[in-house]
Amino acid sequence: MFRSRLDQVASQVQAHLDMVMAPLEGPVAPAMRYTCQGGKRLRGFLVLESARLHDVDPAHAIWPAAAIEMIHAYSLVHDDLPCMDDDDLRRGRPTVHVKWDEGTAVLTGDALQTLAFECLARPECHPDPAVRADLVLTMAQAAGAQGMVLGQALDIAAESSQTPLGLDEIITLQDGKTGALIRWAAMAGPLMARDDPTPLRHYAQALGLAFQIADDILDVTGNEDAAGKRLNKDAEAGKATFVSHLGLDGAKARASDLVEEAVSALQPYGPGADNLRDAARFVISRDS
Amino acid sequence: MFRSRLDQVASQVQAHLDMVMAPLEGPVAPAMRYTCQGGKRLRGFLVLESARLHDVDPAHAIWPAAAIEMIHAYSLVHDDLPCMDDDDLRRGRPTVHVKWDEGTAVLTGDALQTLAFECLARPECHPDPAVRADLVLTMAQAAGAQGMVLGQALDIAAESSQTPLGLDEIITLQDGKTGALIRWAAMAGPLMARDDPTPLRHYAQALGLAFQIADDILDVTGNEDAAGKRLNKDAEAGKATFVSHLGLDGAKARASDLVEEAVSALQPYGPGADNLRDAARFVISRDS
Repeated sequence: MFRSRLDQVASQVQAHLDMVMAPLEGPVAPAMRYTCQGGKRLRGFLVLESARLHDVDPAHAIWPAAAIEMIHAYSLVHDDLPCMDDDDLRRGRPTVHVKWDEGTAVLTGDALQTLAFECLARPECHPDPAVRADLVLTMAQAAGAQGMVLGQALDIAAESSQTPLGLDEIITLQDGKTGALIRWAAMAGPLMARDDPTPLRHYAQALGLAFQIADDILDVTGNEDAAGKRLNKDAEAGKATFVSHLGLDGAKARASDLVEEAVSALQPYGPGADNLRDAARFVISRDS
Repeated sequence: MFRSRLDQVASQVQAHLDMVMAPLEGPVAPAMRYTCQGGKRLRGFLVLESARLHDVDPAHAIWPAAAIEMIHAYSLVHDDLPCMDDDDLRRGRPTVHVKWDEGTAVLTGDALQTLAFECLARPECHPDPAVRADLVLTMAQAAGAQGMVLGQALDIAAESSQTPLGLDEIITLQDGKTGALIRWAAMAGPLMARDDPTPLRHYAQALGLAFQIADDILDVTGNEDAAGKRLNKDAEAGKATFVSHLGLDGAKARASDLVEEAVSALQPYGPGADNLRDAARFVISRDS
């Protein structure tokens, strides 16, 4: 039931991404389209569901849904580069620098980031320019040097450090690397409706952390074919993770508690938020 | 006289960049500040002068001036990477991937692009959110896959191609790589004042091309110490340039004609636009 709703959203987001990128020409356009294929579209799902809860026109909400998936895709392309995580496989296919080359991968990520901001600023995204400017501002804060890029940079710094990170440091790192975009996605609905984003911020805060703990668990227990990427990297690199700190059972228990916390935060929305409750349960049960 | 006005603007833009980046923390922040030091600030100058001609409050105009310099700086950091132009020297100092490492250089460029859009979307940039959304939209169009990134990608593709580019192809390439940002900078004033940008678009169109021809001339005739970067690269790489197509004298003549064209386009502004006229003459007489 939830999985089919997620697949349905994934198709809508994909169609919109294809439409936005159709007019693009030049050597980087094919790699941009390639990068934006596949994936769970969890972030796009959060945008569309939070928008639905706040009665935002889906024809508007699809723009920030596409934009957040572009930001996510850009971060993956750059993160997969040899000078970063050096990954050959992503979503079951060769990464961009493998299929094309490193220069193309850098430019593809650059152009996807730019296009994400273009989507938010386009008049079709929302009739109120104040909403569009706010979407840009909050997205920039979530994705930038104090958000996602900070998390990435802390992650890279940790890899070359002699002392493994403590649990609090991992939480800070992940709050930037994954948490900031997930939070933005879940708050996009109230932001577009100019409503109070507090309940969804609490929901997304717990969800983002549960998501990352589940990622660490998946890295240890997962199946590479299902995941579509290389696994067991953290243990091989001797990297501190939620699992190395809490143990496998401890990590699973913490993730479950966070899901309960996320579900409780949705209380003001009543049964209308059941899709988001299912999404929270999904993030700790997924195999990819 | 013009040089001192340009230096004055450079100080203002630098102070604003420093102010915006002062609160940033984490491993990438020092490299972001480093990247945003120095440079002629021609793009920031064009923003502030075009804003002055359209009676835009300089306290507002300094935001897009800083933003365009951040976009320019991000493009240089990524362009200098080993997988792109592989340059060790920029503005007379080691490039970011040399002073830090490649991963830091990728993230520094990424975060500077994000911060540029944040600057345009911040309420301090302009009281009218429609203007802020427009600045974001037009900047994204200028910097993205159909603007600056397209130019960069065509440039990289040309390097690995067997057939040298024709003159028209070089013009298309440069229109993206340098022209799009210069055009945006010169049009930022009318854009913020909601005035007709046509005369400044014509000015910037000619100016951008003159700028690039001058760059090609400088690559052949320039002094590396004054330029603060490696020169004579294009000839060594057997790359087609304005100089290889037109000859040195032909290129100089074409650049002069374009400067005259740029100066003529400013006619509606009368003597108030003398700084912009001087800027046009400056771009073909500079040594860096």
